[in-house]
Amino acid sequence: MGKVFVIGIGPGEENYMTPAAKEGIISSDIIIGYKTYIDLIRPFTEGKKVIDSGMKKEIERCNLAVDLAEAGSTVALVSSGDPGIYGMAGALLEVKHERKSPIEIEVIPGVTAVSAAAAVLGAPLMHDFAVISLSDLLTDWEVIKKRLALAGEGDFVIALYNPKSKGRVTQIEEARSILLQHRKNSTPVGIVRNAKRQGEEMTITTLEEMLLHPIDMFTMVIIGNSNTLVQDGKMITPRGYHL
Amino acid sequence: MGKVFVIGIGPGEENYMTPAAKEGIISSDIIIGYKTYIDLIRPFTEGKKVIDSGMKKEIERCNLAVDLAEAGSTVALVSSGDPGIYGMAGALLEVKHERKSPIEIEVIPGVTAVSAAAAVLGAPLMHDFAVISLSDLLTDWEVIKKRLALAGEGDFVIALYNPKSKGRVTQIEEARSILLQHRKNSTPVGIVRNAKRQGEEMTITTLEEMLLHPIDMFTMVIIGNSNTLVQDGKMITPRGYHL
Repeated sequence: MGKVFVIGIGPGEENYMTPAAKEGIISSDIIIGYKTYIDLIRPFTEGKKVIDSGMKKEIERCNLAVDLAEAGSTVALVSSGDPGIYGMAGALLEVKHERKSPIEIEVIPGVTAVSAAAAVLGAPLMHDFAVISLSDLLTDWEVIKKRLALAGEGDFVIALYNPKSKGRVTQIEEARSILLQHRKNSTPVGIVRNAKRQGEEMTITTLEEMLLHPIDMFTMVIIGNSNTLVQDGKMITPRGYHL
Repeated sequence: MGKVFVIGIGPGEENYMTPAAKEGIISSDIIIGYKTYIDLIRPFTEGKKVIDSGMKKEIERCNLAVDLAEAGSTVALVSSGDPGIYGMAGALLEVKHERKSPIEIEVIPGVTAVSAAAAVLGAPLMHDFAVISLSDLLTDWEVIKKRLALAGEGDFVIALYNPKSKGRVTQIEEARSILLQHRKNSTPVGIVRNAKRQGEEMTITTLEEMLLHPIDMFTMVIIGNSNTLVQDGKMITPRGYHL
């Protein structure tokens, strides 16, 4: 009976991939993942069977991984960031359970996108924060809107995963409108594209002007709380120390 | 003029320390950190000046790092987990600003405790989540209680950092009471001590029974949302796929 490693490779470059992630890939016979992520780990996949797969085929990928592990292989299912945060870990565990499969599954955590983006911006996550995905493919938009409002009311710093894609553009506008009911126009907002990997771009703007900047599916948006400030070009949420 | 790296070493073992973290330590002349974390990175500090410091001396540590960098050294300020999540990144940036110091600061993100704990438990963070610290040393307890209530109402998965310490034992009891106003007794709760490092222990219990299990400052508590379930001994928050 084989095993599946669900591996988080972090932002994408070797510099932020943990030794545990590399070992998981190296000790696997077969590597499965979305093409972009597979390209990022080519140096470690030589001589292995590599299965590129498209987006939105998560369950197919999980079933394939379980099939291959049941046939005796060690399989690496590769995600960017941390597979435990909106990643493949959950779907794989669900598929294993549904199929009553006896295979072993090991989740290898990675540096998640919000950590990478925060490091680029400065230190926006020094206080309590909420992580919300704006993708309504699998979640009712009303639920997401309610969460945005409550996180706004609770003065959480708010990190938005999946803020916008080609076919999904209005959610970020609505999210901003909801948050403006609880935060000032001048609230700092950090926008980071390709955090801690090639092509990194970052902007620090405000809730008022955030939509003037490009946002896409490779972007993380972090909205400050009522104490967040911008100092020396960095976005900082004070923890409350007396300096 | 020198530089300070604020380095996240992840859970603590080499296996989860990124190459960027190691390089930051290796390229520094002086290493500063809380004793427990310094001990974890001994293999990389040979021949360097190492300054152990006690807990609760964050600002002192930051001032020392700025002093040394201003004198021309490259300094590594070491945190466990990710220094951008309740870590040293914010305090250091604030101290630099307050002192109008021209030193360079680079934040190196790491695998944060909530990612490590989630990987041990299964996949509890597949849906929107709130990260809340129960430490009221620097935050008014009323603010924390309000956030707990709103996160409870919003059906966020909730990760509690600093759930309990020797001198701070009632907060976790109050947090549980608040969440019970929004969640069932049977809501799954994951408790992980020393996630992804030596001495790792994990329990999956319920909101009703969570206080029967030991919780301390090395523990992360993750409380499921209304859909979180326990399957094959793993805590899973379904993302909503049709299997």
